[in-house]
Order: sequence, then C-alpha cells, then structure tokens
Amino acid sequence: MIITFPDNKKREYPDGTTSFEIAKSISEGLARIVLAAKVNGEVRDLTRPIQVDSTLELLTWEQPEGKSTFWHSSAHLMAEALEFYYPHIKFWVGPPVENGFYYDVDLGDQTITHEDLGKIETKMRELAQANHQYIRKEIPKPEAIAYFTEKGDEYKLDLLSNLEDGNITFYTQGSFTDLCRGPHIPSTGSIKAIKLLNIAGAYWKGDEKNKQLTRIYGITFPKQKELDEYLAMLEEAKKRDHRKLGKELEIYTFDEDVGPGLPLWLPNGAVLIEQLERLAKATEKKAGYKRVRTPHLAKGTMYLTSGHLPYYEESMFPSMNIEGEKYFLKPMNCPHHHKIFKTLNASYRDLPVRLAEYGTCYRYEQSGELFGLMRVRSLQMNDAHIYCTEEQFAQEFKAVNEMYLKYFRIFGIEKYVMRFSTHSANKLGKKYVNEPELWLKTEAMVRNALIESKIPYIEVPDESAFYGPKIDVQVWSAIGREFTLATNQVDFAVPARFGLTYRAADNTLKTPLCIHRAPLGTHERFIGFLIEHFAGNFPLWLTPSQVIILPISDKFNDYAHDLSQELNNSDIRSLIDERDEKIGKKIRDAELKKIPYMLIVGEKEAETQSVAVRKHGEGDKGAMTKENFKTLIQQEIEKQLNV
Amino acid sequence: MIITFPDNKKREYPDGTTSFEIAKSISEGLARIVLAAKVNGEVRDLTRPIQVDSTLELLTWEQPEGKSTFWHSSAHLMAEALEFYYPHIKFWVGPPVENGFYYDVDLGDQTITHEDLGKIETKMRELAQANHQYIRKEIPKPEAIAYFTEKGDEYKLDLLSNLEDGNITFYTQGSFTDLCRGPHIPSTGSIKAIKLLNIAGAYWKGDEKNKQLTRIYGITFPKQKELDEYLAMLEEAKKRDHRKLGKELEIYTFDEDVGPGLPLWLPNGAVLIEQLERLAKATEKKAGYKRVRTPHLAKGTMYLTSGHLPYYEESMFPSMNIEGEKYFLKPMNCPHHHKIFKTLNASYRDLPVRLAEYGTCYRYEQSGELFGLMRVRSLQMNDAHIYCTEEQFAQEFKAVNEMYLKYFRIFGIEKYVMRFSTHSANKLGKKYVNEPELWLKTEAMVRNALIESKIPYIEVPDESAFYGPKIDVQVWSAIGREFTLATNQVDFAVPARFGLTYRAADNTLKTPLCIHRAPLGTHERFIGFLIEHFAGNFPLWLTPSQVIILPISDKFNDYAHDLSQELNNSDIRSLIDERDEKIGKKIRDAELKKIPYMLIVGEKEAETQSVAVRKHGEGDKGAMTKENFKTLIQQEIEKQLNV
Repeated sequence: MIITFPDNKKREYPDGTTSFEIAKSISEGLARIVLAAKVNGEVRDLTRPIQVDSTLELLTWEQPEGKSTFWHSSAHLMAEALEFYYPHIKFWVGPPVENGFYYDVDLGDQTITHEDLGKIETKMRELAQANHQYIRKEIPKPEAIAYFTEKGDEYKLDLLSNLEDGNITFYTQGSFTDLCRGPHIPSTGSIKAIKLLNIAGAYWKGDEKNKQLTRIYGITFPKQKELDEYLAMLEEAKKRDHRKLGKELEIYTFDEDVGPGLPLWLPNGAVLIEQLERLAKATEKKAGYKRVRTPHLAKGTMYLTSGHLPYYEESMFPSMNIEGEKYFLKPMNCPHHHKIFKTLNASYRDLPVRLAEYGTCYRYEQSGELFGLMRVRSLQMNDAHIYCTEEQFAQEFKAVNEMYLKYFRIFGIEKYVMRFSTHSANKLGKKYVNEPELWLKTEAMVRNALIESKIPYIEVPDESAFYGPKIDVQVWSAIGREFTLATNQVDFAVPARFGLTYRAADNTLKTPLCIHRAPLGTHERFIGFLIEHFAGNFPLWLTPSQVIILPISDKFNDYAHDLSQELNNSDIRSLIDERDEKIGKKIRDAELKKIPYMLIVGEKEAETQSVAVRKHGEGDKGAMTKENFKTLIQQEIEKQLNV
Repeated sequence: MIITFPDNKKREYPDGTTSFEIAKSISEGLARIVLAAKVNGEVRDLTRPIQVDSTLELLTWEQPEGKSTFWHSSAHLMAEALEFYYPHIKFWVGPPVENGFYYDVDLGDQTITHEDLGKIETKMRELAQANHQYIRKEIPKPEAIAYFTEKGDEYKLDLLSNLEDGNITFYTQGSFTDLCRGPHIPSTGSIKAIKLLNIAGAYWKGDEKNKQLTRIYGITFPKQKELDEYLAMLEEAKKRDHRKLGKELEIYTFDEDVGPGLPLWLPNGAVLIEQLERLAKATEKKAGYKRVRTPHLAKGTMYLTSGHLPYYEESMFPSMNIEGEKYFLKPMNCPHHHKIFKTLNASYRDLPVRLAEYGTCYRYEQSGELFGLMRVRSLQMNDAHIYCTEEQFAQEFKAVNEMYLKYFRIFGIEKYVMRFSTHSANKLGKKYVNEPELWLKTEAMVRNALIESKIPYIEVPDESAFYGPKIDVQVWSAIGREFTLATNQVDFAVPARFGLTYRAADNTLKTPLCIHRAPLGTHERFIGFLIEHFAGNFPLWLTPSQVIILPISDKFNDYAHDLSQELNNSDIRSLIDERDEKIGKKIRDAELKKIPYMLIVGEKEAETQSVAVRKHGEGDKGAMTKENFKTLIQQEIEKQLNV
C-alpha cells in the first residue's frame, strides 16, 4: 500500500503495517515521541494496522490532536487510580479540554477533597511507570450492556443506549476498562508529569435537575520541566489576572445598575482606549482607510438582508418596537458599512474602498458565561471593511497581514498563529453558502496569501463563517498564555445580498469582494490581554500615567503643578503626589503604581526649572532640564511605536 | 402708585395711568417703538390703565414678547383682509410662531392659492396704513355666544365652550372682531412690512379625523428693510440648507433599513466628526478633564434612581428585556458618569473631578418630528460632568463659559446669547425638586457667574430642568439664522439620589454639585449648523478635503500619488483629480467642490518636486516647494485654531 505524508512524499509499506511501525521506519526518535496518527483525516491509535493506500500524519505533542489524545489517555489513567481508592466509583465522561482533562464521577456516599489529590497523583505515577498498554477492543452491544449491568454502572449504560451495535469499543489499560471510542496513546509510560488541579461540582448532563457529580481536573505532560513551567505560568497568570489588576489599576468597573458584561471605563482605562484608537487611526490613515460613523442600531429588515436574522439572532439583544418596526442593537458593523459603500457609488477607479470605524457592537451572552473583559456584552471593535476586486484581493490581504505584524512588534507579541477556517463540502447549502467554486477559489486565494506572508498558520476545515473563509488570530502573552484576539473574514456572499456593485472598466456592474478585519480586536478583549501581557507595566506610549511628580515637601507643590501643566501641554500624562509623606515613601508607592517615570522636585529643581529623574524598576537617572526630560519621553515613545 | 422698572428704579404715577403714557413720560422715542407692556410679570396691552403699585417692563421689537405681540396683531390684520375677500370664512386660531404667525381658517367651498396671497397682502397694507386701533372689550359669555351663533361660527363657539364667564374678551380693529385674550399692539399703523409666505393644510385640533383647515403663514416687521433682510436670509438659507449640502458634499445619508433619524456618516462627515473630537479632546485635556467610556445602555433601575423613569420615559427608546431585567438605551450620559464618580472615591483634594465623553445617546422623537440633522434619534454628545464643591462652582462655571467663547471665536460665531432658565416657586415639589433655598442659592450663583463673564444672557422663569437651573446657548449663523446648540445645567439634586459624596477636609462626607455641560452640543446638530453657517466652505482645519491635486496630464499621475501620500503622512487631507480632462475644467470643478487648495502639477513641478498653488475663491498663489506648501497649510491651521 502507498502512504502519502503531509509534505506529499509517498512511501510503500506492506498492507497491515501500523502507524507506529511507519514512525519507527522513519526514525527511532520520532517513534519515541509520536502519540497518535491521523489516517485519511481521522485520528486513530498508533497501534491500529493500516490496510489500504492512505494519507498519514504522525501526531506528537506539538500538534493539538496529539496533545488531546495524550490528555484523554491521562483521564483514563486518573480513572484507574480513582477506582483503586474508591472501588464503588462510577464514571460518566472524561474528555480532554483546552489545558488538560477532567473526569465526572459519582462517588456514592464518599467524598473527595483537595487533600486526597496527592495520593491519587502518586498512584497515577506508579501506574504510568508500569507502562501499561491501552488496548482497544471492539465489543458487540449486548456484551457491553452485560458488562456494565454487572458493574451496576447506570452512567455507562446511559451512554450505551445512544450507541449503535458495531460502533462500540472498550479500552483497557492495567486493571481499568472503559467504554470509549478512543483514540489513545500506545501506553501509560509516556505520561511523565502529572498534576491534579481542581475539584468542582457538575450536574449530570449539565442539567441542574440531575444529580451533582464530582468533576476532577488534571493536567499531564511528557516532561517534568513542561509541567513545572506550566504551573509557574499559572501562578504568574493569577498575579496578572486582568480582573485583579483592572481593579487595582482603576481601569474598569462593572455596576449592578448598568448591567453585567457592560464595563464602565474609568479614566485610566479611557487613556488606554484613546491611545489604542490613536494608534489604529494613524495606522489606518497611512494605509488609505477612510473613517465612517454609524448608529448602534438598525431595523430588523437590515438584519434579514444580512442573514443575521434568524441565523445569529440568539447572539443579538432583543428587539425594540418603534412605530411598528423592530429595531436591533448591532451585533456587527458590516451591514451599516455595506449601506455606506452602496451610497458612495464607487467605480473601479475608487477601489479598494476601505471603511473603518471603532464601532461598538452589542452581543448577548448568558450572564453565566460572562468573564471579566474577555467575555462581555459590549464590544468596541477595531473594525474595517475593504471592498475590492478579485485582482486586488491578494495585495489587500497581505497589507492587512503586515498591519498585524506591525502591531505584534509594537506590543511585543512574539508568538502568534493564524487559524485558517475553511468550509466543508458536504455542508454546502446548509452551514455554508452554496457556491462550491467560489469557496475553493477564495480559500486558495487566502492560502496563497498566508503562504506568501510567511505567517505561521494552521488550516481547520468546517469552521468558516457562512459567507466565506475565516482567520482567527491567536497570540501568546509574555507568560505563554494563549488568547484569541481578532478575526479576519473574506466575504464573497453578503455584498451580493446587499446589491453592492462597482462600475467596472468595461462599464458593467460587478460585485466586490469584502474583507472584514479587526487587527486590534475589541477594546474589551485586547485591553484584557494587554493587562495580563504587561502585568500592568504598560509601555510608556500607552500607560495611563507616564510621569509622577514627587515634591520633596509641600513648599514645592506650586512648582509641581506648573510642571504638570507644562507636561500636559506637551501631551505627557502626569500625576502629582502631594501627600505629606517622606520622599522615600513617595518613591516606594510610585514604584507600586508601576508609573514609568518619577520626577523628584525640591529647592534646587524649582530654582533651576529642572527635574531629578527616576525610572520605574531602574532607579536614578540624574538631573536634567525640563526640556531635556520632555525630549527623552518623546524619543522613547517614538522608538516604541516605530518598530 | 409706584412703578418699578427692570433696573429697579421707581417712579410715581397717578393711579390709572396706562403703560403707553408711562412710555411717553420717559421719551417720545420710546413711545414710538413700544409694542406691549409686562405688568407684574404679565404681558398686557399698552392702553390698559394700571391701578396699583406694579413692576413694569416696556416691550419693544427687541424683546421676544414684543415681537410675538406684534405678530399676533398681524394675524388679526390678515384675518380682516381675508374676511374682506372671503366673507363666509370661519376662523379657528391665529397664534404668533417663532418667525411670524399663521391663521387656521375654514374657507367653505372656496379655496385659496399662492396667487391670491398678493392681493391679501395689498389689502393688509391698506388696512395697516389706516392705522386702526386694537380695541379690547370684556364680554359676558352669553353675549359672546350670541355673537358667534349669529355669525354661524362653530369654531369660535367651540373655543367659547372652554372659557369661563368673566374671562372672555373680544378685540376689534377696523371691521374685524375676534374672540381673543390678547394682548395686542395699540394700532395697525406700526405694521409697516408684510409678507405672506405659505399655505398648508392643518387638521382641526391637529386630529386627522377632523376636517382639514387652511393654514396661512405670514411675517411682518416694523420696517421694510428688516423684511427685505429676512427674505434675503431665507433665500440664502435655502441654498445653505444642510440637507441639500449634506447630500451634495457627501457628509451623511439616511437609509430606510437603518431607520429614520439615525444618520450614517459618510467619510467626509466622519472627517468633520474626527476633527471636532480632536478639538474637543485637546481643549478638555488642557482644561483638566479626564475622559471615560460608558456603554450605550443600562438597566431600568438606574433610570429610576436618576428620575428619567418615569419623567423622561416618553423620550426614551423602548426597553429590552434581558434575563428578566429591563434595559434602556441611554438618553443621557449623566447616570453612567455618576456611577464612575462614585467608583473613584474622591476626596476634597481630587475635586473638581471633570469626566468627559463623546457619548452617543438615543432619544425617541416621533418620525413626523424628525428633521435632517437638527432633529434626530441618535445624538453624539460633547458631554462632560464636573463634580465640584460649592466654593469651586463659580470658577468652574466661568471656565466652562470661557470654553464656549473660545469655540465661538474658532467657528466665527459672532452673535450668541445664553438663555438662563430658572424655577418657578409655585411649582416646587411638582415640576421642580422641592428645595426652595437651594434653588435660590444656585440660581444666584449662576446669575453672578453670567454677569461676571460678561456673556449676554436673558433670564426665563419656569423653564429649568427638574434638578437645577439650565442655560440654553443660542447662536446665530453667518446669515443670521438662529440655532440652539448646547445646554449647560447645574444639578444640586441628582448627585444625592445617586449617593455621590466626597470626603471633605473635616473628614465628613459631602455631596458635590454637578455641572452638566456640552459646548459643542451633538455632532448631529452642530455639524448641521456648521454646514449652514459656512455654506459648506469649512475652514481649512475642519474641511474633509484640504487639497486637491490636479495633474496636467496622466503622465504626472505618479507624481500626484507620491505627493498625496506625502501630504497624508503630514496629516494633510488630499484628493487627486485623475480624470482625462483639461486643466481648466479640473480647476473649475475643484472650485465647485469648495476645496481650499488646488495643486497643479505638470512637468516642471514633477522635476523640481514642487507645486503650483491656487486657493479656492482667491486664485493663483504661485509655485513653491512641497515643504513650503506644507508649512503654509500648517500655519494657516494653527492660526485658525489659536484665536
């Protein structure tokens, strides 16, 4: 049989060779780290033989599917350890999650506490070292039912009732057997580092009318070092939590009378917003964008045309009835921008038309799903829509990517990936607009542009928007935490629904393509990310207070005020610490507030109209004239923004 | 009896002296122009004798009440002329309006057209020259009913049915008698200039189920010159109509699917908005304001606390029900700002706290009342709230007034007046917060600040907000049209309802005063005003396109593009006219577009990297280097903004 690898190289193997044997045939090193295999697009156990010509991708810890297989197998390992200590335990489901895995269990009369987790971890380590194989077995349904009936496990019997005969598999490692469709890693020995993290209650099937089960969370790694780093990151992330720092640094607040998910931005937060908008507007202006402003609501008729009604209605705020018409808060800015494009009567000479707006959209999220700034109901979006011809697409798309890269440099984002979501051919006309050729053509255009931009990307089938391919931009913060910040979308369908056209060179009317892009995402999520990324130590150009003036005694408060006004007039943001405190105490407090520059002013400074400069975290920078200090600040900002 | 004049001077007159005789006693000149009298706060005929000690204000054309009396008398004059031509005419009501007057009439089987207005005007002039007196007569109700029953006038009989015996007066001039409570000017002779403007249909009592009457509009003046100026202004205003220019200059548009009263701002309009916001933000920053950002909605509970529910509910958009709570679009920004002030935990050292936001509010207006940008449903407001102590009030209020004056200079607004609305003591606890002493104290504070600022103001009792005195800022455009742009309010009641406090120097908690201020009003109304004020010829700093580049032939298009990008990088907004047209045609078209600067570029300019400059309306300014041109622009802008 012929095996085709991801780089399109082909090799011949005897029928029935396993993926693991193929890995070994490539290199012993690969065989040591491989965890699962994607055979003809389906993730499977390494130990299953391949019988026909196939495509094969060998999955390691580096691939998301390798990781989730590893964690799924770790959940079974935890189950085995739990059954050792709690023989009457019953198991519901134990899936991998974004970071690690959990298992929902019914402990009967027994309970489990944080103190118990240590011994379970120890047992897991012991079972891992024994290096038991995960053995897959296909089981006829009656036999499976008999097994769990005998075990008295109503949960697995419930799962079985929804499975068809012929589709049922058991996995066994050591003394533990589970109903499971797999796949799993070959054996427990590769699970080298184990940490159980948390215990929570979880209603069976998520329904609060059902019994509450115990959910135990854990995470595992192939190396102890990776676990140590992960736990250190968690510890650091807790300190950087944007909800904690957001309050301490007076960036935003929520109010019961305003409503959940609707942040009020305090003066410090408004500085961050204004600075981000300044950056975005300057960047977009240079790149030939035109700004527009649109209202925050529109009639239902518009959202019928756009397709938001009924497909997106559950994410929209409820309607308001005015003079017999339904109005909705806008969940996106695109339909309003389409209306403006239409008014402009563009010809091919005017294209590309790039319409930008920091528009505030409103989306309904259940209050239980709201989370700090990361999951909110009001979204101030760095939005723009680019209307262009097919010929212009590649250049426009690349220019958008370059804008991303520029922002990544400015914000010191070193790790990022674009998640390129495509359609699924068998859902055309259902989940996706039924235009098979346009899908393939547009996806190829995007793929080529991504390759030419040399931006790392992964391709994910069956996750695009209904009107075209989608790119989610994932970035990692300074401590390695992952955030999804922004979305780019290519829209070849909605412009036609709105009757958007441009007059082409041959005097016919053609429909433009539309690129939706929002490199800085929403203020809410982006500022949430920045707080955690910088741990509140925002760069000078961005930070709410750039300078704090520390008069040595109240005799110099007047000079401090003059100085502050002068800095203000030069667009430098300053505070004064007028408290009746010793200068040492004022310096210590200023350090805690993470303000980049401290200006100590006393008799000498007031007399010579100068300042004694200290930098946050660096200490004394000596005395200088006011003018020199202003130049210093301006140069540092220029350096931060021109990268 | 003692007569007290507005300047508090007192004079003694015999009981029964008329206001007219008093005017005459002051000067013959005054007697010639006086139109009515305000006796003890009530506007009355000049010819009515005064019997007791009274305050007296003599009203001329300069006072709004003088003008409206003049126009009310003119409506009677028109009625007399109408009755001459249409003997079977029946009259409903004929009030003065903002500019002129109208009368609603029932012509029976007859009709009246624009062509008929000329002869009616002529008859009015003839009757005016006859100088008939307006004679007031008190009439017992039965007699009044008998009079109009005989005349067969069901309209006046309807009016009579709502009047009490003892309260009924007739006014007669020449051959015309009307049921009317007055007051009127002494005689028709002062009506020197007459113009009938328009004929419209109007349902009796405004109810479309009733008969449609004919409404005839007119205006009159004491001098022909004033009428000529008014008609010229109307003519010019028609050309400057912001709805016409707004479309021609591509500033804004409305869309059926978005909804009435919800403008979409096109790229040119968005430049105006961005420039105004830049100006406002820079001005407010210099003046020590802090910016905030708040969501566009809040729970009903907040508007119960603020008093908007139920007092303001009919001006609010309908509620949205989310998870069992009512949410409303914000009709004002104040409650959100109050919540932020509360979060800041201010001490007396932090006061005044000035919170600014260009917040978008939504107010419901009936679709029939919407009018271009002047009456809309979405309002982007130049809002701020100043929280201060009583001691700080005068200085803060004066600083706000100085900000107004600076804006007036920047926009070339030469005529303005502040309309200072106070409470009415007998409506305390009903229309106004029941705090008699606080009202008097706060009004005195505002009055003193107005006097000290030397800003012209008029005082209007019984029109304040429910929570404190109000100042409406009225300005006149370049052609003398009046606009109400902005409101200032002093709030001594709502901060307490929100539990707002600051820690005073004596360590007690005190409630701050709050000044609501919005010098640039809303973008919608202010830009509507600016379009008409400048007739689209916006000043250089504000105008959407500052420069248009006119290549002599397409050989120089590349140079034009480089030049445009270079201007863009220097924050100068430019267009290129790339059409295949003669340069003369391009210049003529650029003049029509009202773009301040034209740059003509050909071989010489491309070679020497220079530009040939023409200024809109002024012509050739000669050749210069690109650098010199940029400096010229920047200097002109600086001059425009630093006034």
